[in-house]
This record gives sequence, structure tokens and C-alpha cells, in this order.
Amino acid sequence: MNESAIGSRKAVDFRSDNVATISPEILRAIVAANTGSAAPYGADEHSRQLDERFSALFETIVKVFPVSTGTAANALSLSALTPPYGAVYCYEAAHIQTSEGGATEFFSGGAKLLLLQGSGFRFAAAALEQAIAVSGRGVRSRSQPSAVSVTQATEYGTVYRLDELRAIGSVARSGGLKFHMDGARFANALVALGCTPAEVTWRLGVDILSFGATKNGGMSADAIVVFDPSIVDDLAYRLRRAGQTWSKMRFAAAQLTAYVENDLFLVSARRANALASRIAEGVRNLPDAKLLAPVEANEVFLELPEAVIDRLIADAFLFYRRSPRLIRLVCRFDGSDDDADRFIVALRTHLARG
Amino acid sequence: MNESAIGSRKAVDFRSDNVATISPEILRAIVAANTGSAAPYGADEHSRQLDERFSALFETIVKVFPVSTGTAANALSLSALTPPYGAVYCYEAAHIQTSEGGATEFFSGGAKLLLLQGSGFRFAAAALEQAIAVSGRGVRSRSQPSAVSVTQATEYGTVYRLDELRAIGSVARSGGLKFHMDGARFANALVALGCTPAEVTWRLGVDILSFGATKNGGMSADAIVVFDPSIVDDLAYRLRRAGQTWSKMRFAAAQLTAYVENDLFLVSARRANALASRIAEGVRNLPDAKLLAPVEANEVFLELPEAVIDRLIADAFLFYRRSPRLIRLVCRFDGSDDDADRFIVALRTHLARG
Amino acid sequence: MNESAIGSRKAVDFRSDNVATISPEILRAIVAANTGSAAPYGADEHSRQLDERFSALFETIVKVFPVSTGTAANALSLSALTPPYGAVYCYEAAHIQTSEGGATEFFSGGAKLLLLQGSGFRFAAAALEQAIAVSGRGVRSRSQPSAVSVTQATEYGTVYRLDELRAIGSVARSGGLKFHMDGARFANALVALGCTPAEVTWRLGVDILSFGATKNGGMSADAIVVFDPSIVDDLAYRLRRAGQTWSKMRFAAAQLTAYVENDLFLVSARRANALASRIAEGVRNLPDAKLLAPVEANEVFLELPEAVIDRLIADAFLFYRRSPRLIRLVCRFDGSDDDADRFIVALRTHLARG
Amino acid sequence: MNESAIGSRKAVDFRSDNVATISPEILRAIVAANTGSAAPYGADEHSRQLDERFSALFETIVKVFPVSTGTAANALSLSALTPPYGAVYCYEAAHIQTSEGGATEFFSGGAKLLLLQGSGFRFAAAALEQAIAVSGRGVRSRSQPSAVSVTQATEYGTVYRLDELRAIGSVARSGGLKFHMDGARFANALVALGCTPAEVTWRLGVDILSFGATKNGGMSADAIVVFDPSIVDDLAYRLRRAGQTWSKMRFAAAQLTAYVENDLFLVSARRANALASRIAEGVRNLPDAKLLAPVEANEVFLELPEAVIDRLIADAFLFYRRSPRLIRLVCRFDGSDDDADRFIVALRTHLARG
Repeated sequence: MNESAIGSRKAVDFRSDNVATISPEILRAIVAANTGSAAPYGADEHSRQLDERFSALFETIVKVFPVSTGTAANALSLSALTPPYGAVYCYEAAHIQTSEGGATEFFSGGAKLLLLQGSGFRFAAAALEQAIAVSGRGVRSRSQPSAVSVTQATEYGTVYRLDELRAIGSVARSGGLKFHMDGARFANALVALGCTPAEVTWRLGVDILSFGATKNGGMSADAIVVFDPSIVDDLAYRLRRAGQTWSKMRFAAAQLTAYVENDLFLVSARRANALASRIAEGVRNLPDAKLLAPVEANEVFLELPEAVIDRLIADAFLFYRRSPRLIRLVCRFDGSDDDADRFIVALRTHLARG
Repeated sequence: MNESAIGSRKAVDFRSDNVATISPEILRAIVAANTGSAAPYGADEHSRQLDERFSALFETIVKVFPVSTGTAANALSLSALTPPYGAVYCYEAAHIQTSEGGATEFFSGGAKLLLLQGSGFRFAAAALEQAIAVSGRGVRSRSQPSAVSVTQATEYGTVYRLDELRAIGSVARSGGLKFHMDGARFANALVALGCTPAEVTWRLGVDILSFGATKNGGMSADAIVVFDPSIVDDLAYRLRRAGQTWSKMRFAAAQLTAYVENDLFLVSARRANALASRIAEGVRNLPDAKLLAPVEANEVFLELPEAVIDRLIADAFLFYRRSPRLIRLVCRFDGSDDDADRFIVALRTHLARG
Repeated sequence: MNESAIGSRKAVDFRSDNVATISPEILRAIVAANTGSAAPYGADEHSRQLDERFSALFETIVKVFPVSTGTAANALSLSALTPPYGAVYCYEAAHIQTSEGGATEFFSGGAKLLLLQGSGFRFAAAALEQAIAVSGRGVRSRSQPSAVSVTQATEYGTVYRLDELRAIGSVARSGGLKFHMDGARFANALVALGCTPAEVTWRLGVDILSFGATKNGGMSADAIVVFDPSIVDDLAYRLRRAGQTWSKMRFAAAQLTAYVENDLFLVSARRANALASRIAEGVRNLPDAKLLAPVEANEVFLELPEAVIDRLIADAFLFYRRSPRLIRLVCRFDGSDDDADRFIVALRTHLARG
Repeated sequence: MNESAIGSRKAVDFRSDNVATISPEILRAIVAANTGSAAPYGADEHSRQLDERFSALFETIVKVFPVSTGTAANALSLSALTPPYGAVYCYEAAHIQTSEGGATEFFSGGAKLLLLQGSGFRFAAAALEQAIAVSGRGVRSRSQPSAVSVTQATEYGTVYRLDELRAIGSVARSGGLKFHMDGARFANALVALGCTPAEVTWRLGVDILSFGATKNGGMSADAIVVFDPSIVDDLAYRLRRAGQTWSKMRFAAAQLTAYVENDLFLVSARRANALASRIAEGVRNLPDAKLLAPVEANEVFLELPEAVIDRLIADAFLFYRRSPRLIRLVCRFDGSDDDADRFIVALRTHLARG
């Protein structure tokens, strides 16, 4: 991903979902939480309610740890699932491999990421099973299989099906691996699948979830949601030591509670996904425009002639150019139909010019 | 510090400055920053202004890295100052030694904290000099002296004098050590000394500062302020890898800019310090009440008869009891004279009962 | 490498070169060094002579650090070449990736291995160049290119040509990467190439070399040979902290000096390589026997019918079976022509049976 | 310990026990092991016998891991006893704190050493108990008490009594701490106490022992002896990853087996201890010569007038000068009565000159 961000005169912005604003509901929750004194480090009432609210949402008792970023969520989750000499399996283009600066290797004390291939930008249970089979379990010179991580929705805007995840969970359980889900765009996946949070996580064997909120209307907090209670205590110490335990935790808890209240997270994700679909529809059957992957969540990867991309940039559309002929468009809860339509029109125009 | 927090019926709360609310000015800044899209990870306009604003404040070019906690600020700062086989000198009761779960050892890859003693809950330059002299510089079996860390204001509410810091800075420079300041309560120290930020930091040789905001009206962000430009690049990678680089950085930058705008941080600290002084005044010359340390910032450490402490707790005053006969009271920008006065009256009453 | 070692009744042993004895010359050197007292930790006369002897051998001033294993040599060398957030490039089947339990990730504090593909079980300079080009230099979320490691001879018994290494060295230098060579079988490569130690290392840009001795007649010591003097000091601390600095260093130094005295290392490697060639010759043109790779050093990888491998095992030949139809034979300085011939005869017999 | 080693013209050498030769019995064992091929990495017959021999010696089933140094033995043992956010208690002058370059912090992934004080250069169970009591068990910001380490014999040549160790073991067990013994001079302690290996280790609650051999006649191997079987598997992976698992393990195993055969280790330690006692006797009641600690093992710490030390150095006696008026003399299995007597005579002469 040799990305280069595009300049910023008044522009339609598809760079990422993290360029978005804060949802008004979430901002109001922060303001509402700002009364009186409150116990620090998660011993407050808002944090208690957060655990309660998420336990209801996930239909099982969960422990929620707010953290400042998705990288922290992923790397610290995984550090609690693997010994320092362990191996973590993931897709070859997983965010934990490509875009977190070695955070998992660092927080785990040296665990190794082992990369799986697959189609649709996700790996299949069979690939995991095969990798475990040749992993050298019990051989002292080999990193020991300890965990598997899936990204849901994936880094390329596709979504694992429930039966795919169930199969991965089953292989993980058979092999004694813990199961982590990187849900930086968890809500977008829920909307795409039309399933409940429980159905796509612990019911399929997921032990721990990086629960993204920032990309979908949050301000400064994502969360780790722990399904396996045996992980909680160890993780709590790791988080504090990592500087990931806010003293004024109530304001993170309030954000996350507001994020799921009245299905805000689903409403927002539905909006973002719909915009991505709108663009996908708009470019379908265009000569010289090719979707790299099916648009199942809120990301559109589009292969275009180099000159066309140059002209879109000249038009001040903002997006990441992954290579000379590949761009990524990310849609947001606070984007507009008009933005999408303007992009489609411009693209059609430039393509027509050839 | 075998602390036990006290229960929470409607109460006067002296537990910590981190139980406080967000300053209205800071909250307004967050709301104001919530417009349009913005480049992520600190490439936004608010972050640019933050660097500019702090460079003006510190009267030199600085780089500011917002982070989620003081532990992150301290440990990541120190990780950029020491090789993994280095030693970091600090006061024996320094927060980095007692209250960060080994964060410095972790982020540095195994550096060792070497503890200095002193009076007034701070160490003297001579103690540092003596420690370096016997450190075994160049001896492969010894952790190599690499950095020194002071806490300003200290963990016990005292404040290093400028000449004390200058002497420490001078010893550090002579010995080839980098100089870190843990300024979790930096503003309280500034107010106590009546000096400028520049005078108490880089002008005395400080290379990097953990700049606290959360305890003094911030919401979710502290900062690392880097004076030595040779540290910046290395630290930027470490922060990203540590999950300490928010994608929506503008909201952290906005908080920190608001925090120093119109001297808000000084106004708030002055208020907190004044409340602590008020309590100190109120208990002076009381039989059986003894201040453990001079009250120079916003903390009051008070030795009292055990039964008196029990009664204050029964009265629903909230504070940390450090030992059967020692309590810590922390005053806040959002505390009131009335709170302080109620405490003094209650204390006098209980002491009078004997 | 899902290896399973084969049982051990009186047998011809091709399992590895590490099943070998100690060269008599090396054992005599240990005995000879056992007189009087000597300064510890490498401050002795034998260690001084080791540096001198190797500097002559490599035709440049080098620093030699004896270590207990090749894993220590590799991982500690690399730890001195990369920041903890760095990336190290290597071939996808490199020993540091597959067979050291994550040692490089651990000793480096979390650096990432990035895998290159190639033919002949080695990668080309162009593959490295391409990988660096898309590495995201300067992008905070990406592990930063810091070092490249080649194995010479390779894990599959092939050997990099001098011009291949020169090209890799050139790409490394252009890209600001340090260049490490894993020479667990360095002597076997020298013999194969007919070149000098200098010609295949620092003259091509190699900064640091894991110099294997154990597999070729040593007892308990391999070595790190440092060409780049800027690495020495940092590495010395890392080694001591890693428990890799013997107090009675003279006995390791004596082994290594004896290993190169009178070209013992080359004589021994020549013997091992010749045995491997003998086997390769013996199986050439056999139906159903296929060499996986050209036999250029002392290893033979042979694809055979499953039943044939079963029968060889029943004959008590010892070797590693890498998969049902692939075996590895490693030849040693203390092996005999007769061993090789017995294997060839047995193999021909079993193949003839079909 | 700002040590400076003294030069080396033909001299009586009291610098350390690691300046010694290899015991002839041990060297013979290496030679004897040098026949035929052997399975690598400890799967050989000598390694099997080592486990058996040590299990008999310790009167319980133990697992023995040969390692290259005492630093490796200590730091890797402790890394298997503590989570990365744990605390390890030890005496304030413990070798793991002062002389291993931060190895324990490194191998543990950031654990903290907490220092205990005491008399006779050892700490008492009560000091440990008190430290645990104020440790903040369960408090997320505090390094969690995980292990305790004693050095037997101590760094100052004194020896823990059995009842002292039993009390420490009891406090450790009550507090849920693992118990490590640094036995770099284990044999010297056994001889001093006249007890069996079992009596001073697992029978008192010791879980894991760094078993020194190098200082007492070994060549290149110390060992970790594991009493608690739950530690074995984790440690085996850590050792391999640390580059501490020799491929030609048989030669380390042979050394260690020979070291205990026919009580060689006790005979050698008895000799060293006797020499130290001879010196202690010789200096008793001398004016201006003061033993810093009772001489219970093989070390003599002697406070002398500065000029007297200068003259001893001029006489070419070799020893470490710990400070202007303090020297350390270490006696060895291969030292002679004559060496001791020459030292005593010289000392008396110089003292008489005043």
C-alpha cells in the first residue's frame, strides 16, 4: 500500500472513514457525561453501564475495554492470546500485517504473523487448517500456533459470510487457537450481513473483538470486547501498562454507549454502505472501470486508466491512490448522495474523453 | 501506595484531579472542531496549529504528540531516550516506578529504572551525579546511563526549584543523558514557581516533556512535547506502533490548543493550587494533624489519627488513604472553596473530639 | 517443515551436520587453552588473537563475537541493524523465518520479517528493490525497511553467486538498509564458489556475518563477525544482556581460531560438499528420483516415491523427511564415501523394486 | 560495583572464579562424548542421562536445560515465572539487578525488579512479606508480585541458612510467587551448609534453580534445573528462541554430568571455600584489615588502607578493587595454598609498613 494522499482544496472527500466528523448523538453524550466527579480508570458509572449495555447487545456477558485506536485494540487483544513465541494467522493483506507498524510483534513480545492467502480478500478455513497442519506444533524451533485473526469487514470492503467464520472458528477451536476479530468496520459488516452482533462473533467461536467506532462516528475511542472471561484479567494489566487506560474513562464509555444506543452504529453504517453501493452501481458496466472487489461494505476499490485518475485528482476529489491505476474510495455516515453522484458524473465524463 | 478508594454517596471529592470534569472551554473546542472532513493521523489543520501554538508558548520550535494518557506520554518518551540496555534515573517514588505497571521497562525493550533518594520528595543533582559515577559506564554487564526523569510538580505536591533543575540538567548533559520531565501536573508547577514554560524546561536542558492536561480540565488527551528535534522521527514511529496516534487527531489537537488558549491551563491550575493552600492553611498548627510535605501545588498529604480518618470517611469525604494514618487530598480546577472549608471544619471537629 | 526425525539403531546418519563430532584439531585447541588463569568475558589473549586471526582472514579489521548458536548469531546481529519498528527482508524460507521460533522478532523488540520470493531458493536484488519501492518509507504505519538478510549457503543447499550478492548489496546500500549474511554454512559456500571470505562479504557490502562453525566441526560456538565498526558497541551490550557472553571466553575463541587455522574450515567443508556431490551424482538420471535443487553445498533434497522412502528408513538410514515424498540428506566433514555409496546402492535397489 | 581489573604479569589471580581452568574430569568427558553422530538439540543420549543423573542428585524428577551463561540461566528462568507486567523481588545487590545488563527486564518483556534490603547481604522472609503486603496486588497500575529470587551463595560470599530459605519459600507460596534460586555458586553453598541439593532447593519451595558450573570447573555450560514441571514446556520454547539451545547439546550435557559425578562439584567447591577460609584466618585480627562480610563460601571482601591495596597491586596480585579501600578476592578449585599464603604474607608486610 504505497498510498499518497491527495491535496485538500474544497473537495469531495473519500480518503477514509476516519476523516469524518463525530456523530451529534455521540458528542451530546460526552457533554451529558460532563457533570460532577467520577471515579477514574473505569470504576465509574458510565463504564459500568457500558459493560451492561454491550452485554445486552451481544446477548452474553462481555467485558468492554475502551482504547484510543484500532491498532491498540488489535495488538493488545492479540498480545493476550499468544505467548511471546507464538504465531498468529491472518490474511496476507490484514491491517495488522500491513498497517500497524509491527504493533502485534511488539505488544506480544515477539510473536510472528503467519500469512494466509484466499480469494475475495479473505482466507478460508481450509487454508488455516492446512497452515496449522504444517506448523510444527511442539517443535521448539517453530513459532507455535496460538491465534487467528479475521478482519470483518475486510480491508478491501468485502465481508466474511457466517458459515465461513463458523468454519474458521471450528478449525481454531480444534487446533487450540484463540479467535480474534478485527472489527474496525464491524458495523458495516453487520449491516451487510443483516445479522446480530452475537451471530457473527462468540456464537461462531470469536473470543475477542476489536470493536471499531471511530470510523463510524466516534470521536476518540474504539473498544476491545472480550467474550472469553479467562482473558480479561491479563488484558487489563496489559492495557494499563500500555497507557491505554484513560483516567477519565467515563467520556470514552459515554461515547461507546451512545454509539450503540438506538442502533446508531447500524444506522450510520447503513448510510455509509449505501453510498458505496451507489458508487458501485454508478460505475458498473462502464468501459475501463473495474471494481477490484465486490462492494459489500463502505469501500470501493476501482481500477481506472491512469489519465482518468489524474483528472479526478485535478477535479479535487480526495481519495487514496494505491497504485497508478487503482484508487480506494471510502464512504462515510456523514457523506451525501450528492458527493457520490458528483463523483460518478465526473468519472463518466473523464472516461468518455478516453 | 496501598490505596483504597472510598465509597461514593454524595460527597466532597478529593480522590484525584482525574475525577474532574472537562473545562467548558475545552469541550467547546471539541464541538467547534467537528465540521467537515479532515486529514487523519495529525495531518490536519488543528494539529498544525497545535504545533504552532505550543512553539509560541514554549518560545522555541517544538513538536507536539497528543497521547491518550500520562503513562503513554512517560513511557514512550523514555523509550525514545534510551537503548533497550540503558538505565533511566528517577526519584524512588516516581510515578514511572510505582504506578505505571512497568510501562517504561516494556516500551523501552527492557531498560532499567535506577532509583534516587532525596528530600522534599525530589532528588538533587548531586545524587544523580554520584549514581552516574558508580554506574559502570562502558561495562557490558551494567545498564548504561541514558536518561533522567523528574516529575514536576512531584508525586507529593512539592515543586523542583529552577536552580535544582538546572543543576540536574547540567549533570545530565555532562554525563550524556537525555532529560525527561513528567509534567502530569506541569501547570500546577508553573503556577507555583511563577515562571514560564520555557524557563522550566528546555532552557534548563529538558529534552522532552510529558505535558499533562487531563488532570487539569482535559478530556481524553495529554501530550508529549519534544524540544530535541533528533527525537521526533523515532518517536513518531513508536507512537503509531503503540496505538497512540488517533486517526481523528484533530479532536485531541483542539483540546490541547484550547487548554493553553488564554492561559486556561494556568487559570485552572491556580484555582487548584489555591484550594490546596486553603486546606493547608486550615490545618496548620492543628494538634495531631501533620503535613507530610509542604503544599506547593494541588496535593495535600496529611497525617492524622486513625480514628479521625475513619470519621472523615464516615462523613463521606472522598480521598485516598495511603496508610492507616496518612491521607492524600487532591484539589481540582472545578473544586470549590466551600468543599475545602467543609473539610477543614469537619477535620477540626473530629480532632477536637480527640 | 513438518520434520520428523528418524529412529537411531546403528545407522548411516544424514540428519544434519549438527549431529557431527568435534574436529580433532578443535578439541586439541580447547585442551591447549586450558592452562593458567585468564581474564574473563573476552578480555583474554585467545580472544585478542581471534580478532587478529579473523581480521587477517577477512583482509579487514573485524570484531568477532563468539556466541552459542546460529540462532543467537542471527537474531542478535539483526537486532543491532533495525529499530524495533523496522522491517528485515529475507527469503521466504529463510531459517530466521522458519526455524528460530521468532528470535528476530524478539531480540529486535518487534521488528517484522518481510518475505521475498525467488528461484533456486534465493531471492534476487530486483525482488528486494521492488519490495523496498512499495514499503511505505516514511509512512508511520509501515514497518520501516532497515536490513536485508541472505543465507549463504542457502537452506536448500544452493549458493548465491558473487554478482547476485553484489547486486543485493548495492540495492541495500541505495536503500539505506544494513546487509546481514547468515553463514551457518559459510565454509560450504566458500568452497562451492572458490572465493575468499572477503570476496563474498564486506567487499559486496555485507555489514555483519553469522559465521557458522558448529555444523562443520565446532563444539559449542558460532560467531558474529562485524565488518561495520559502528555496530560493535551496541551489539556488545546486547550480547551480554542476552547471556551470550561466556565468562570463560578463551575456550570459545580457541575453538574458532582452530577452526580457521590451516584452512581447517575449508578442508572440512570441501569434504562435506564432496559427499553431497557424490550422492547427487549417484542419483542423477535415476527414474523417480528428482533433486529439488542443484546440489551446490552439502545438502541434498531428494523427491522419491513414498514407498522408497519408507524402505530407506527401514534400512536404518537416518535423515529428515520433509514431506511424504521429500527427504533431506546433509553431509558432514566426518562422513565417509562408504556412507554415501551405501545410500546410493540402497536407493537404486529400492527404486528398481519400483 | 565500579570495578577495575588489574593488569596481568605473572601473578596470583584472585579476580574471579571464572578465570579458572576446566576441571580435567570435565575435559575428559567432552573428549569421551566425541564419538559417532548424535541427535541434536538435547534429543541425544547424553542429555537423557543428564536429566536422569540430576534427578537422582536432587532426589526428585527434574528437567535440566544446559545454557551458556549464568545470565541466561537467571533471566530465562525468571521470564518463565512472571507475566511481562509482573514484579520479581530480590536483594538490592543481587547479580540480576547489578550485573546482567537488564537481562531479566528484557527476557520477561518488561517485568520489574523490586529490591529488598537485609543484613549479611541477604534479605529476610519478613522483608519479602512486608513488600508483598504493600505491593498493590490486583491494582492495575502496579507491577504484580510474581516471583522471588535469592542468590545462594550470595554475591558477597555469605550463605542463606536453611531456615531462612524455608521462611522465604513459605512467604512465596502464601503470596502465590514462584521461587527462583541463583546458584552461580551453588556448590560452594552446599559445602558451606553441609546439606544436600534437595534440602536447599525444592524441599524448601524452590521452583527453579540456576545451577552454576562454569565458576567451579566447567567450560562453557551452566544449567537451569526445573523442579516445577508446569514451567518446562514454556521455558523450552523461550530457550530455543533465545539461541540458548545448542545443536550439539551432548557436549554440554557431558560437562554437566561429569561435574556432579563422584561429587566433583563438591570436591572442587570445598577446595575453593577452604582457600577463602585460609585467607580469612590469615587476616583475622590484623589491624586495619576488616572483612566486609563473614567468609562462608569462596569470596573474601576486605577493607584495607588505600596504600596497602596499591602495594598489593604493585606486587602483581590480581583482584577486583570495588572502591579505593575495598577489594574482592575469589578463590578457585584450581588455586593453591601457596597462593593464599603469599597473599597473606604480602598483606601483613604492607600493613606492618603502615
